[in-house]
Amino acid sequence: MVFEKSFLVKGDIVYSDAIDHIVTHENSYLVCENGLVQGVFKVIPEQFAAFPLHDYEGCLIVPGMTDLHLHAPQHTFRGLNMHLELIDWLEHVAFPEEAKFKDLAYAKESYEIFARDLKNSATTRACVFATLHKKATILLMDILENTGLKCMVGKVNMDRNSPDYLTESTKDSIENTIDWIESTAKAYENTKPMVTPRFIPSCSDELMVELGRICRKYRLPLQSHLSENTNEIDWVNELCPDASGYADAYMKTGTFGGEVPTIMAHCVHLTEEEVHLIKDQKVYVAHCPSSNNNIMSGIAPVRHYIEEELNLGLGSDIAGGDSMSMFRVIVETIKSSKIYTTFVDRSSRPLTSKEVFYLATKGGGSFFGKVGSFETGYEFDALVIKDDIWKNPRGFTMEERLERALYSAEDRDIIVKYCAGNRIK
Amino acid sequence: MVFEKSFLVKGDIVYSDAIDHIVTHENSYLVCENGLVQGVFKVIPEQFAAFPLHDYEGCLIVPGMTDLHLHAPQHTFRGLNMHLELIDWLEHVAFPEEAKFKDLAYAKESYEIFARDLKNSATTRACVFATLHKKATILLMDILENTGLKCMVGKVNMDRNSPDYLTESTKDSIENTIDWIESTAKAYENTKPMVTPRFIPSCSDELMVELGRICRKYRLPLQSHLSENTNEIDWVNELCPDASGYADAYMKTGTFGGEVPTIMAHCVHLTEEEVHLIKDQKVYVAHCPSSNNNIMSGIAPVRHYIEEELNLGLGSDIAGGDSMSMFRVIVETIKSSKIYTTFVDRSSRPLTSKEVFYLATKGGGSFFGKVGSFETGYEFDALVIKDDIWKNPRGFTMEERLERALYSAEDRDIIVKYCAGNRIK
Repeated sequence: MVFEKSFLVKGDIVYSDAIDHIVTHENSYLVCENGLVQGVFKVIPEQFAAFPLHDYEGCLIVPGMTDLHLHAPQHTFRGLNMHLELIDWLEHVAFPEEAKFKDLAYAKESYEIFARDLKNSATTRACVFATLHKKATILLMDILENTGLKCMVGKVNMDRNSPDYLTESTKDSIENTIDWIESTAKAYENTKPMVTPRFIPSCSDELMVELGRICRKYRLPLQSHLSENTNEIDWVNELCPDASGYADAYMKTGTFGGEVPTIMAHCVHLTEEEVHLIKDQKVYVAHCPSSNNNIMSGIAPVRHYIEEELNLGLGSDIAGGDSMSMFRVIVETIKSSKIYTTFVDRSSRPLTSKEVFYLATKGGGSFFGKVGSFETGYEFDALVIKDDIWKNPRGFTMEERLERALYSAEDRDIIVKYCAGNRIK
Repeated sequence: MVFEKSFLVKGDIVYSDAIDHIVTHENSYLVCENGLVQGVFKVIPEQFAAFPLHDYEGCLIVPGMTDLHLHAPQHTFRGLNMHLELIDWLEHVAFPEEAKFKDLAYAKESYEIFARDLKNSATTRACVFATLHKKATILLMDILENTGLKCMVGKVNMDRNSPDYLTESTKDSIENTIDWIESTAKAYENTKPMVTPRFIPSCSDELMVELGRICRKYRLPLQSHLSENTNEIDWVNELCPDASGYADAYMKTGTFGGEVPTIMAHCVHLTEEEVHLIKDQKVYVAHCPSSNNNIMSGIAPVRHYIEEELNLGLGSDIAGGDSMSMFRVIVETIKSSKIYTTFVDRSSRPLTSKEVFYLATKGGGSFFGKVGSFETGYEFDALVIKDDIWKNPRGFTMEERLERALYSAEDRDIIVKYCAGNRIK
């Protein structure tokens, strides 16, 4: 890692400043000063002339991407057992694996591989579920801190309807959460704790209410799952007869946005009432199309969420999702929106590559502040993509090069990566 | 290239011998004698002891894959303009690009890139559309011949309903096809001509009847498109009022299987009558899920085709499809089958990774003869996949390693590749 936070980067610069709008600067200079973008210039301005130059001429330079939802311990079985639906998949695949993370040696080896792969990916910011194990979660945070990625990480809470081998008492769950937060909230430069009730079915009301209080007391964000699968929704309705629906079950316990910055993964089958609640509470939706396709949850109506101006980003949802690559998540988001149009609502206009590029960068990035764009004042997260392997006599505009990169790029095509002004790959 | 056709390969060997059946041999020897598989052994048998050993211990070794449908000239715009449906996409994107291949310098540069990428991919056998240009098609065949891949290549026929800049007279189309066949049928070791009417809308009855005769006279196979998009089907029904449907429109001109080995790409919206005709005529269906999702054609009912025991393989359909990687085509086939179950027919059981691995190897490979398996007597097409990057403390069976490779492998993970006993990568 190079901790040199003021420099110039030269290349073919592309970013999104609004949904469906791309800004391009061919063969230009992007200025990073103290970790923040100071603009893009065709000629180096006098006041930056002394900055060191990182020359990537001919390469595409795009903002780093934000993965709003993934499970670090599930990375061990990524791309496996993709033949079950959610509840069975949790019981037979995810839970038994997560239980292994009680063993710190197993956790260390697995999390180092997870961190290596996340560091090499297009992701610069991520909101990560760990397991319910306090020590293993702290270990994951230690490991992620060293990557230079900016991550929010959650010790998972589960005090009901979970296997004996992967459950806590309500009291332990609360105490361990407070211990973990006090150990980690100020311990890192890059890594922050995020309160993480798994989902309503595995957290009692008492626990949820306390977790909401903890968020407010420690000024911490919260992440969970919402409305992924129809069987899950039926189950929540049984468990919470007083709530008007799944979102309201969170709302009633004070764990649904408002003063608590909140991400809810999936949101596949929301009612209109829930869409409005999400909007009112400024909750972020993490759209996870790969996971939704793999475990047959359905397709979220993303066009509708864009029209409703919800806060919206993308999640790989490792390992319901099969790839950590945000490039693949982008392509699957586009394709899923087309399938939605074909099979669910012919009046829903499919998403474009521009729109989904926005979601992967500035859309999800905004959960982290001024992140995911090269507008002045934004944190300097950038990917340098070597795209000459896709060149051919046809010739391409900058926008076309971006679209082709989204469809074709693999982690190995990212030759250099910056997060918050630090070079981390 | 090493032209050494008798040797031993050591590694972790996996192949499919039947739909939904995988054979695994960990740390074993696969014997290639004169380009054919002679079995898999735990200990080297005496009669092969003198063969040179290619040691890939710890790597996965799987059969090469067959891409039953792709368009070489469209590789130039792969991953672009993915916002149109078929007929508009042909008019605004595909046809203008294909017209450029009249220029042999443009064709040479483009086709060399296409051949480089196909050679580096998981594909060892491919059925390829060129353009209507005779000379450029011969050039493509010359270039593919040098890769060591086994390809069938078609000069496209188009004599109606096509733009002026990309159309032939019926007479020219027939004469040029005969010239091209006579120049190429015996010219190559690896590359063979395949008669290629684009599709019913762009080929007159007179032309189709003559192409059927040419297939029989020269004993050549035929490839075309069938039932991709509902607007296209309506158009065919208008153009061919005497036919009972799209498949019958081919049947009436003698270009639909029987003694002519035939591949029909897509087959998304077949009637039951058409399914039976395909079965009776032993026509191969090339399932192209990426293309069908990108240009919103729908999802083919592959489970039904398997139950009906149709001849079935996979196609990348570059550049309706966005990736030449058969790994990605496999994953998209699985996911599309799940979406089909979710939105179209809840009684249709989703495809498994085993089944789709079979389609990509032995299923499609059978169009080329004994291809796509490591059973004794099969042509020796093999991929050596370095999969240690996906290892972690969880540990994996051979079948699990295969499933993970299908979801995660990229071309760069194929470190060695053989086709018909020749090492070509």
